[in-house]
Amino acid sequence: MSTPNTDEIFKNVIAHAKEYGFVFPSSEIYDGLSAVYDYGQNGAELKNNIKTYWWKAMVQMHDNIVGIDSAIFMHPKIWKASGHVDGFSDPMIDNKVTQKRYRADQLLEDKIAAYDAAGQTDQAELLQTEMDNALKAEDLPRLRELILEHEIKDPLSKDRPDWTDVRQFNLMFSTQVGALADDSSTIYLRPETAQGIFVNFLNVQKTGRMKIPFGIAQIGKAFRNEVIARQFIIRMREFEQMEMQFFVRPGTQKEWFNKWKETRLQWHLALGTDAAKYRYHEHTKLAHYADAAYDIEFDFPFGFKEVEGIHSRTDFDLSQHQEFSGKKMQYFDPEVDPDTNKPYGNYVPYVIETSIGLDRMFLLTMINAYKEEDLSTEEKQDSRTVLRLHPCLAPVKAAIFPLTKKDGLPEKAREIMDTLKLDFNIQYEEKDAIGKRYRRQDAIGTPFCITVDHQTLEDNTVTIRHRDSMAQERVAADQLDKIIGDLVSWKNVL
Amino acid sequence: MSTPNTDEIFKNVIAHAKEYGFVFPSSEIYDGLSAVYDYGQNGAELKNNIKTYWWKAMVQMHDNIVGIDSAIFMHPKIWKASGHVDGFSDPMIDNKVTQKRYRADQLLEDKIAAYDAAGQTDQAELLQTEMDNALKAEDLPRLRELILEHEIKDPLSKDRPDWTDVRQFNLMFSTQVGALADDSSTIYLRPETAQGIFVNFLNVQKTGRMKIPFGIAQIGKAFRNEVIARQFIIRMREFEQMEMQFFVRPGTQKEWFNKWKETRLQWHLALGTDAAKYRYHEHTKLAHYADAAYDIEFDFPFGFKEVEGIHSRTDFDLSQHQEFSGKKMQYFDPEVDPDTNKPYGNYVPYVIETSIGLDRMFLLTMINAYKEEDLSTEEKQDSRTVLRLHPCLAPVKAAIFPLTKKDGLPEKAREIMDTLKLDFNIQYEEKDAIGKRYRRQDAIGTPFCITVDHQTLEDNTVTIRHRDSMAQERVAADQLDKIIGDLVSWKNVL
Repeated sequence: MSTPNTDEIFKNVIAHAKEYGFVFPSSEIYDGLSAVYDYGQNGAELKNNIKTYWWKAMVQMHDNIVGIDSAIFMHPKIWKASGHVDGFSDPMIDNKVTQKRYRADQLLEDKIAAYDAAGQTDQAELLQTEMDNALKAEDLPRLRELILEHEIKDPLSKDRPDWTDVRQFNLMFSTQVGALADDSSTIYLRPETAQGIFVNFLNVQKTGRMKIPFGIAQIGKAFRNEVIARQFIIRMREFEQMEMQFFVRPGTQKEWFNKWKETRLQWHLALGTDAAKYRYHEHTKLAHYADAAYDIEFDFPFGFKEVEGIHSRTDFDLSQHQEFSGKKMQYFDPEVDPDTNKPYGNYVPYVIETSIGLDRMFLLTMINAYKEEDLSTEEKQDSRTVLRLHPCLAPVKAAIFPLTKKDGLPEKAREIMDTLKLDFNIQYEEKDAIGKRYRRQDAIGTPFCITVDHQTLEDNTVTIRHRDSMAQERVAADQLDKIIGDLVSWKNVL
Repeated sequence: MSTPNTDEIFKNVIAHAKEYGFVFPSSEIYDGLSAVYDYGQNGAELKNNIKTYWWKAMVQMHDNIVGIDSAIFMHPKIWKASGHVDGFSDPMIDNKVTQKRYRADQLLEDKIAAYDAAGQTDQAELLQTEMDNALKAEDLPRLRELILEHEIKDPLSKDRPDWTDVRQFNLMFSTQVGALADDSSTIYLRPETAQGIFVNFLNVQKTGRMKIPFGIAQIGKAFRNEVIARQFIIRMREFEQMEMQFFVRPGTQKEWFNKWKETRLQWHLALGTDAAKYRYHEHTKLAHYADAAYDIEFDFPFGFKEVEGIHSRTDFDLSQHQEFSGKKMQYFDPEVDPDTNKPYGNYVPYVIETSIGLDRMFLLTMINAYKEEDLSTEEKQDSRTVLRLHPCLAPVKAAIFPLTKKDGLPEKAREIMDTLKLDFNIQYEEKDAIGKRYRRQDAIGTPFCITVDHQTLEDNTVTIRHRDSMAQERVAADQLDKIIGDLVSWKNVL
């Protein structure tokens, strides 16, 4: 079997995800909805298991972190305060004839890449600098000038069209809420879950009697009207975030930033992923609210891409909400400052954020687990596709097979299943030869296959077959609970 | 202590939910967003536990039911096919002067109630009949005539205003997706999760090799632009559903409908709730897609209200999608029909739906658990507020208290906590007297409080105090895992 290249692997993973019920294109019978996907029967379980792993690691294991579940709908002023109404947008330009719309910076980036490819590195560097300056100054007319000066063509019509002005296009989805004719108002679908935490900061701190440092975690949907959504579930218009905001005393943010940067990478590595597949990426251009920012990047088939961000957000968000809401967003810190011998007293806390894209983590997990294995021997060509998922994340923990459909074997198999299904997600399969059933379970990453045969009826033993080694052993049926439990326990990763 | 009336209890539960971090009004520092709520640190855990109970009962325990997680955004044609674009609306009428908008049927309902209150039962019955006829015929001008004929006043301005025509107001939220100037299109926020299951019917059936009868389950957000949202989290504009669609052979729907009707009530009762608090309500007016429908109603402080619906939806939805998408939505049934001696062959399956409002289930659980208890003795007045939550649902499973903050007791308490926290959500508290700490844990429904004292340092025993009986006993610390595990095990309800 030839080794597929990375592009092929990515294509194969996407096809596999669909074929085995992990990810379906949304609304597929209606020819799909661009950049939206549904999780199928195995995808939903895998996604839930990733959520559980994150929630346990962040909330359950830390007695100073609690979780909330805030609504997608929020007061529109919140997005004024956060800067999203004014600043969360892309510069767009239209071809006046075809009315196709493009991101102006994307057109320029493509031109820079073309210069580079043609060996015109001076041209490339110059344009890069000019574009960066224009973006920084939010000088939209200058972006248009650059497009004209560099004679950039419409990528679709292939000509140099009559371009419109460059305008900002906000990435937030909006909708109208309420029915009263004089009271209709525009609200947004949240573009991030973080603000749901910030506006609840005092509610949680007071009712939970939290003491700084403490964190608030949340898993939930967010929405961005991406102009160009692409790369499968990497960039979707509807996606899910797992975010934690950690509130600290001003001046201690650097220390906590470093701690969370380490802790979060450990969370990824605890799943057994090769450390070489991960790297940190330090932001050199910081967002206006941040005083430090690192991404955790994973080596996807299309290159290193951000999976998680750790950002030191200063007191920006809480201060903005204090200003826009008119409510104090302060914490009273009774601890004594050794420098002044007085309590630290009232302050707006600083915030360290850890923010991970659940869908990206899902894709990472699939790609990392996906293996096409050559099992050929001298006698026979053979191969299998297996998802080497961490057992904690596997959608199905064990499959149970009666060797044949008669002699009471199905009944015995179901009897054993009944002793296990309360604790584990178990699948029952009686169709086709055992070897074929093994392959189907390999393809969805099931760690154990359990076969019930005639000997089982005599001595209550079964054959257990391990996914990764494909080794088989005979064990007592009443040992299954412990064997499966030991391998899939959260203890192995927490 | 006087027994509070039901109105008071409801008010007290709402206040309690906020004070103890269960439910906060959304965007509260911005004076709230109408009919939207956030779940706080204890609410999020309780909500997650209810989800887990449902998912385990429906998906994990049934090997012919699988779960999916489909997106909120769907192709807009889906809502044409389902009937929501044309039919999911309320009849509205405006006061032309004040521009206030009302539900026309609500104005008439209020008038009927006023006739009844005044003893004019004939008038009330007549108007009811005329209104029902007009609604059934979708005769909007007739609704306006009835408002004029019965001289109905604007409830706010208290006069008989110049009314507009009655118009249909669609309850779906809409938004614009995409950025291409010629490609912008209106999509909706799903008003129910069910359609995400129907459009994935064949994807799941084929990739999961499901055989009829089988079910597809899903938990997720849905959105309705309710004109009058009220009663706390009973009717919200953003809410969460737990729905299961069960696909059956045509002709067997009655039998499966009865099975699911029973099974779902059992799910509620397994939590130990008094059966007298539940009742079935049979729909006499069936929706156009249904051939049978029952609600499971709970006795809320404001009367019996629907918590869950069990609907026999026939083949309506799948047939509509077949027609609108042009794709066959059929299943090939290889089983032999004893009447014809031939396989049943291809058909569009019939569907039994079980649909429960997660937020209503949450409120039901809070109301049912909330007790104000008089603990007074001859010597001393005393009382407590306790949430008698089923231990499986309790947000915190055990709290651990060092008796004092010194002598190594905090360290010992944390050491014991570390042995438990991987399996259970544990809270650590060292502030205030033990009695006060008990009360705080009672208020959030924690089944166990564990006190570490000086004797613990000698013999590794602790005092365990039970929430409901308030009884205390001395147990070995290494028994805690089993004691807590036995009480909070899902085995107790599944």
